[in-house]
Amino acid sequence: MIRVSIVGASGYSGGELLRLLLSHPEVEIAQATSRSHLGEYLYQVHPNLRKRTSLKFSDPASLEPCDVLFLALPHGKAQLEINRYADLAPNIIDLSADFRLRSPKLYQQWYGNSHAAPEWLDRFVYGLPELHRDQIRQAHYISGVGCNATAANLALLPLVKAHLIDPEKPVVIEIKVGSSEGGAEGNPGTHHPERSSVIRTFSPFGHRHTAEVIQESGINQVIMTMTSVDLVRGALATVHASPAMGVTTKNLWRAYRETVNENPFLRLVKEQRGIYRVPEPKILTGSNYADLGFDFDEEHHHIISICAIDNLMKGAAGSAVQCMNLMLGFAETLGLEFPGLHPI
Amino acid sequence: MIRVSIVGASGYSGGELLRLLLSHPEVEIAQATSRSHLGEYLYQVHPNLRKRTSLKFSDPASLEPCDVLFLALPHGKAQLEINRYADLAPNIIDLSADFRLRSPKLYQQWYGNSHAAPEWLDRFVYGLPELHRDQIRQAHYISGVGCNATAANLALLPLVKAHLIDPEKPVVIEIKVGSSEGGAEGNPGTHHPERSSVIRTFSPFGHRHTAEVIQESGINQVIMTMTSVDLVRGALATVHASPAMGVTTKNLWRAYRETVNENPFLRLVKEQRGIYRVPEPKILTGSNYADLGFDFDEEHHHIISICAIDNLMKGAAGSAVQCMNLMLGFAETLGLEFPGLHPI
Amino acid sequence: MIRVSIVGASGYSGGELLRLLLSHPEVEIAQATSRSHLGEYLYQVHPNLRKRTSLKFSDPASLEPCDVLFLALPHGKAQLEINRYADLAPNIIDLSADFRLRSPKLYQQWYGNSHAAPEWLDRFVYGLPELHRDQIRQAHYISGVGCNATAANLALLPLVKAHLIDPEKPVVIEIKVGSSEGGAEGNPGTHHPERSSVIRTFSPFGHRHTAEVIQESGINQVIMTMTSVDLVRGALATVHASPAMGVTTKNLWRAYRETVNENPFLRLVKEQRGIYRVPEPKILTGSNYADLGFDFDEEHHHIISICAIDNLMKGAAGSAVQCMNLMLGFAETLGLEFPGLHPI
Amino acid sequence: MIRVSIVGASGYSGGELLRLLLSHPEVEIAQATSRSHLGEYLYQVHPNLRKRTSLKFSDPASLEPCDVLFLALPHGKAQLEINRYADLAPNIIDLSADFRLRSPKLYQQWYGNSHAAPEWLDRFVYGLPELHRDQIRQAHYISGVGCNATAANLALLPLVKAHLIDPEKPVVIEIKVGSSEGGAEGNPGTHHPERSSVIRTFSPFGHRHTAEVIQESGINQVIMTMTSVDLVRGALATVHASPAMGVTTKNLWRAYRETVNENPFLRLVKEQRGIYRVPEPKILTGSNYADLGFDFDEEHHHIISICAIDNLMKGAAGSAVQCMNLMLGFAETLGLEFPGLHPI
Repeated sequence: MIRVSIVGASGYSGGELLRLLLSHPEVEIAQATSRSHLGEYLYQVHPNLRKRTSLKFSDPASLEPCDVLFLALPHGKAQLEINRYADLAPNIIDLSADFRLRSPKLYQQWYGNSHAAPEWLDRFVYGLPELHRDQIRQAHYISGVGCNATAANLALLPLVKAHLIDPEKPVVIEIKVGSSEGGAEGNPGTHHPERSSVIRTFSPFGHRHTAEVIQESGINQVIMTMTSVDLVRGALATVHASPAMGVTTKNLWRAYRETVNENPFLRLVKEQRGIYRVPEPKILTGSNYADLGFDFDEEHHHIISICAIDNLMKGAAGSAVQCMNLMLGFAETLGLEFPGLHPI
Repeated sequence: MIRVSIVGASGYSGGELLRLLLSHPEVEIAQATSRSHLGEYLYQVHPNLRKRTSLKFSDPASLEPCDVLFLALPHGKAQLEINRYADLAPNIIDLSADFRLRSPKLYQQWYGNSHAAPEWLDRFVYGLPELHRDQIRQAHYISGVGCNATAANLALLPLVKAHLIDPEKPVVIEIKVGSSEGGAEGNPGTHHPERSSVIRTFSPFGHRHTAEVIQESGINQVIMTMTSVDLVRGALATVHASPAMGVTTKNLWRAYRETVNENPFLRLVKEQRGIYRVPEPKILTGSNYADLGFDFDEEHHHIISICAIDNLMKGAAGSAVQCMNLMLGFAETLGLEFPGLHPI
Repeated sequence: MIRVSIVGASGYSGGELLRLLLSHPEVEIAQATSRSHLGEYLYQVHPNLRKRTSLKFSDPASLEPCDVLFLALPHGKAQLEINRYADLAPNIIDLSADFRLRSPKLYQQWYGNSHAAPEWLDRFVYGLPELHRDQIRQAHYISGVGCNATAANLALLPLVKAHLIDPEKPVVIEIKVGSSEGGAEGNPGTHHPERSSVIRTFSPFGHRHTAEVIQESGINQVIMTMTSVDLVRGALATVHASPAMGVTTKNLWRAYRETVNENPFLRLVKEQRGIYRVPEPKILTGSNYADLGFDFDEEHHHIISICAIDNLMKGAAGSAVQCMNLMLGFAETLGLEFPGLHPI
Repeated sequence: MIRVSIVGASGYSGGELLRLLLSHPEVEIAQATSRSHLGEYLYQVHPNLRKRTSLKFSDPASLEPCDVLFLALPHGKAQLEINRYADLAPNIIDLSADFRLRSPKLYQQWYGNSHAAPEWLDRFVYGLPELHRDQIRQAHYISGVGCNATAANLALLPLVKAHLIDPEKPVVIEIKVGSSEGGAEGNPGTHHPERSSVIRTFSPFGHRHTAEVIQESGINQVIMTMTSVDLVRGALATVHASPAMGVTTKNLWRAYRETVNENPFLRLVKEQRGIYRVPEPKILTGSNYADLGFDFDEEHHHIISICAIDNLMKGAAGSAVQCMNLMLGFAETLGLEFPGLHPI
């Protein structure tokens, strides 16, 4: 049994980490910290954990050494204390945006301030196993992933890997997301009467996750448009791209099939009948799957690639646990077996 | 044209007052005050009013004399300045709970503090036209109504008026409500991920609106249980009551038919076919109708009476404008003609 | 008072026509037909009309002469009997897709069969007043509009009119829609447990409304991707386009301002603060407004134009009544004054 | 490994059985039948099972012998072929209503027709482990439970067991339910535009599940009122009851604590702070927990007892698997460990 602690465990990603790790057969949770809920039972904040654990939130200042440390703090916090955390644990998985970008310059450009620990950027591996499985197996410091970036990067994966799109041409990525993406802290726009039934384009351009897509896909011109819709969990990325010369529908089928065959949490959804013919986040709630689909308009030279995820799972806690499994040599899918629900 | 001002116009009831009064053929809006949104255009807070008015929120301190003053402040505020308001306008309609109860003692019992202007309680008429139409026609000071109390009182109206239930026996009233009932200010429980898809019993007993039901129905033992469900507008009251001796289904039909015939905004919904066979708040969104229905289990001596309303309309701004119409001698339905939408 | 009849009045567009026309000061409804609900009261199907009309659905076979005939039949029906309808009424407004396209060839290409009355295509005017106001004033035969096409065409209107985009370059239009778009007849995919909380891309390419966008905008390469989300009414079109040479943000501001100033039902929504900073269909429920917004990424030469509508109003019945007003010389906004609700 | 087959596996309860049993460490699924989806992959109907099983729906006529047979057919079907099923498997768990009632007379009274296999009624045990754990351990034929009856019976359990209410007095049970309760087959009222945002009282009296409450609780006068609200999974029962003589709040605390301590899937939710203070079905989605709460108005001699469940889990497939575990001597919670999600 390895001992794992979670810093910032009262947020939504922290809650999902708790759920996953409490059921993980190789893990024992040592501490779960929260400044704002200090001393409360975990289940008072995450009510699904009632009767599952009698742990209380502990003080981040009293963090003790452990085998793996998950950081689930608001963006900008982990970089301030990364040396302290590294003294406490040999393995760190940080779910925030702090160590996702390899270049301090790119960080400054997208986050508007200089990085507090730029020397650490190179030591972290970007924590999306479908892109960096082998590196993650060797790593001790793993960054989490942006949920929207994950949906976009996985939609792009088969296309980029098989060179089916021209990386010099712009891609337009439309992302629709649920309300949990904004985190556990509300604001006037998340008040239920104002947030219910929305189709609200909150970021037409310039969403920070764009930087992760540029970094990981190698595509320079990425237009990423973010729209909130009415569900709690889920993100759907729709990539509009131009095919490379000579690409056929057959090439696409092969690329997508290979990609989903190589990755236990990727599935291809492209049915001719039934209700669920295309990737949909609805049925992924709570699951670590990412569902992929595509369409090709040969006449207009236009490819659409779709990826659906649960933003808190594949887009956050799920990928983080998958990385932990790889890093520690466990089976990649361990503790991540929940398949999702139907109906939901 | 009469000149009307609204104090506290940035809340949800204030917004509905603005919508109704901007379209009212006999009314001109003089001022709409808001401390928190001072200087902003009305449409920046109530986006449905864009291109309908170029008014801005004004300072409550600079309120000027007018013909009718609507008060849409948080509970407890109107009673502190009622004398000032009365100096400014000959007619006042207060939507808060401050002047709904006739007895200072009852007020203290349910609101936990003594009333700041008890001498004013007698001067106000309880503003539910279906209960006090004639008094309202003569009144200058009208209280608004509690939305849940309104659903309950209207469900009870045909039964009480025709003496079909025994007022000495307890009634159980289950009320299901949408999220707008809590007002425009959010709290952790109204954050969309936490409020979405709830069936949340937030008040099993002792909701303050119970006082209005006791006062207006004359029934002493009222158990009122409040449960939040997932919609924005709407309240459904289900009254469980014991019939008086000898009551038949025919008596009930007659009582409900008479009640809805006497009141332009009441409708009886009791169909044998179609989707909409019973009262439902869903189709009342934006409308001033209250829909009534009933069922009688003769074997078990049990009556169920149902009333559906839009809590912001019949349960707040709609009834207030209806009262204004009566008070000023306009047609009772003037400016309240919107029938609601299907589907919605 | 003009006498108006509606054929196919039990569907959703028919229901909205009924709501609008029952409140229209210049109109008397003569007949409302429905084969499937023959003999039922209108309010048994459209429950918002209870206590507003005692009309019953009549037999389409017994249709009598009238001044204006609205056809709200399923696509493909109106063209089969257009000569009979024209004998009954001097003015016809057809909400279906039958007479939207001017070219029989384009019709065949997108609808898969030859048109049954191709000689009528030229006699109809495309019923979007913002594009064809003057023609509509002179017309006797007006087609309705596709709801998605309307959102797309209005998002494109300022750009096309002011020549701010190059019509030879492709545009990508992402449209998110509510469930009422599919009409009143359900299917397995609209069953609530399957349709709730979806982000479901039901048409990546080739939606039939694309033909209306190509015809009306003059842009040849239109990629239109349709995604269902969880709300009942509403459509949001997001247009991704490339600017013409030399276009500046100032040009865009001017074009959008001019467009909204010239059209009573268009509004520009582009705020720096508040919750409602961009166009959103949520607040348009029941209203005939179309809200426009835009953003321009000068560095990447990318324009985003957004249009939000209620698909049953501006996208169907609202535009149809607006056309009737123009055709008969009434004020353009008559009977269409409902501003929408906040919150909703 | 035991071999299990499911008859009628394309419905919602069948889908949940499949999800649970595919992950159950002691079970191998032999056959899953469906007449309407014969030959399709399970995952084409239950999309959460993609990449989890390559089974296809088989013909109910070709059912083979197995260790445990689950019947998830529409009500009325199992009783017609119960002898055939009993020849195929030594252990049967029937999720329909066919064998829930012990008395043929009670069955006829509530279901309107005589039972086709009345001799079998006595051989079945009512499959709610919290009421009949010891009997279930000895049984070979177990009936499923009505979802609403389960919520009601578990809300009553602490009160009945500790004799805290008078069984001769009537109880009023208000139940609010989600849309999955109606099953996988839609009807006009479940079409998303009509079902969304409802508070729809579809059964004021006489719901068939009432019979199970009367049978299991021993209370004769049960008024059960059913209201649909807007969520997919979940049922909340609110019991209004009169306390027996001398009952105190302390008695209630003790009774509820004992009940939840004796039952692994029952939890008491009665918090003074936080968002989740009372039982709510929202957080139980996919989990087998039933959350209990209560309140006591001593002044008015009124007890409220609340139970929240996932109607497809504790109210159907979850309890069925729990019964299988008991019947076969497995750990009671095996395969039922999923704790639910937060947020959701």
